[in-house]
Amino acid sequence: MRNEASIIARLSGIIPSRTGVRPSGDVLLGIGDDAAVIRPRPGFATVLSTDAFVEDAHFLARLHPPDAVGYKALARAVSDLAAMGAAPRYFLLTLALPGEKAGAWLELFARGMARATRRFGMRLIGGDVSRHDRVFAALTVIGEARRGRVLTRSGARPGDALYVTGRLGAAQAGLELLLREGPRGIARRADSYSLKRHLYPDPRLAIGAWLAASKLATAAMDISDGLSTDLGRLCAASRAGAMVHASALPVARDARPGARREPAEYEDGVALRRALHGGEDYELLFTVPRRLASRVPPRFRGVSLTHIGEIISGRGVVLLDAAGRSRPLRPLGWDHFARQ
Amino acid sequence: MRNEASIIARLSGIIPSRTGVRPSGDVLLGIGDDAAVIRPRPGFATVLSTDAFVEDAHFLARLHPPDAVGYKALARAVSDLAAMGAAPRYFLLTLALPGEKAGAWLELFARGMARATRRFGMRLIGGDVSRHDRVFAALTVIGEARRGRVLTRSGARPGDALYVTGRLGAAQAGLELLLREGPRGIARRADSYSLKRHLYPDPRLAIGAWLAASKLATAAMDISDGLSTDLGRLCAASRAGAMVHASALPVARDARPGARREPAEYEDGVALRRALHGGEDYELLFTVPRRLASRVPPRFRGVSLTHIGEIISGRGVVLLDAAGRSRPLRPLGWDHFARQ
Repeated sequence: MRNEASIIARLSGIIPSRTGVRPSGDVLLGIGDDAAVIRPRPGFATVLSTDAFVEDAHFLARLHPPDAVGYKALARAVSDLAAMGAAPRYFLLTLALPGEKAGAWLELFARGMARATRRFGMRLIGGDVSRHDRVFAALTVIGEARRGRVLTRSGARPGDALYVTGRLGAAQAGLELLLREGPRGIARRADSYSLKRHLYPDPRLAIGAWLAASKLATAAMDISDGLSTDLGRLCAASRAGAMVHASALPVARDARPGARREPAEYEDGVALRRALHGGEDYELLFTVPRRLASRVPPRFRGVSLTHIGEIISGRGVVLLDAAGRSRPLRPLGWDHFARQ
Repeated sequence: MRNEASIIARLSGIIPSRTGVRPSGDVLLGIGDDAAVIRPRPGFATVLSTDAFVEDAHFLARLHPPDAVGYKALARAVSDLAAMGAAPRYFLLTLALPGEKAGAWLELFARGMARATRRFGMRLIGGDVSRHDRVFAALTVIGEARRGRVLTRSGARPGDALYVTGRLGAAQAGLELLLREGPRGIARRADSYSLKRHLYPDPRLAIGAWLAASKLATAAMDISDGLSTDLGRLCAASRAGAMVHASALPVARDARPGARREPAEYEDGVALRRALHGGEDYELLFTVPRRLASRVPPRFRGVSLTHIGEIISGRGVVLLDAAGRSRPLRPLGWDHFARQ
């Protein structure tokens, strides 16, 4: 018989939890009681973020494999911890789903989430399960960071150099590929980088930790809704503006449309749009004082770090093209409520 | 224009948040960045619980006033902290709602949640907002407790005396009243105790804190889904059984049906059913070693503490009636998945 207790027991049996693969003395009480109890390490601050992953808003049940849904639900929440320079430790899961998804679908969802949990070195410490007509996952992730070593959005200053990790636009291209080819596209394109970036994002934990420890960055955030939208948020939090050099943007090769007959100009337009406004790349955006910019290596553990522009005084983001023309970069990334 | 940022700004403007009514040095970074950062107090453990409050599963938009939805969403999550003997401190809110509820409805919801936040001495430190066809609120509440002073479900031992706080069945009677009379019933019955218990539950924080500090209780949990279901969970966690004396149950006066022509036997049956299986009373269930039972006062700060039975060896819960007949007490409280 399926009931809440049996579903929670199945989830905590599959997903590393208190009694899971990484037992340790810092979880005084794990999943299964009214609440979880943890013992924070002396000298460390506790970093918390909450994030929802919802059917028809963030994923489509007919397109997205359940294990990718489970994996991505955790990975995107963890990306917020990467942006703070924090090390992920625990998470709590609120899961609502239809009765018909409480069997095989849930099993695969839990396996995907278990894989992400192990990869990020986390444990599930609490949960709440209820019925709903569509899948609704809300995660609260908890990490730790040394005090005084936390990255925020609000520290960027005019003159700081602006960087982005990795390459942009791939996740958006992966989503478009999936929408175009359907679930069978996943089997056909098993090696597709863009599809992997869309289904199994890779939060930049190591880079975030290095930026926090080295004290190089004045500000950082992750790109979840698109560069144009998230850079606007970083600027607003820092009470500053930014200038982005379009030609410097590290556009993912996969973000360029494959149709060879299209003119290069069109191709560049599509790729640039994906890189500027396509969400879900989960790369980090960060700023470094100009005098320290020489200390930023071109790559960190295989991931490129690209200087894409500058923080400027005033407000708003300006895009500068190769010919030196500038135009305002409007936030055309994802906003659940702006597109009513 | 409504967008995610403006909705989060409105919520954190109304609900006491980092910059709200209780600023203090323990929140290093509040709502608005990628994550919140708190500094746990030395000597204290961090207690965390997550809880969903969902339209059509936990409340009905046509019946429940938005301020009660906001109040209760937080209060029921906080009840889990009360059950641990923890003091509530912070919470994170994941809120999904339809566009048409993002105006006046949201304003009232936030005010109700703000009232609960102040009452429980908490602050909102993080949030995530998205669109959904129905309201879905997922809360993660964070409290603190002195190490070694946390109440759990699993410590009850055969021979322990079983207690319940307050009176049972009122919230269920309030729900039935609301279903019968509709929203106009709220205005007509402004003084109804059962309606208040249903709409604005009162987590037993002071009693939980006292039980934890006094080290009287061997186990505790809150009654959210009904005594029959939750006592079963406490027994399962403690690997023991329980015997409940039906005549000892503190049935709320309001849980008795008002129709005078009904025979007393029927009346008792309805009231007993509400007290045993009606959920949402958010009273505490706790166990005390028999040798310490004399130290449990009949009331604590105006709330009755009633000895309702004993923990016994074996498994399962037995109900003993006034004539000395016993029968198994099946878990007929709320389970989202059991009623498929």
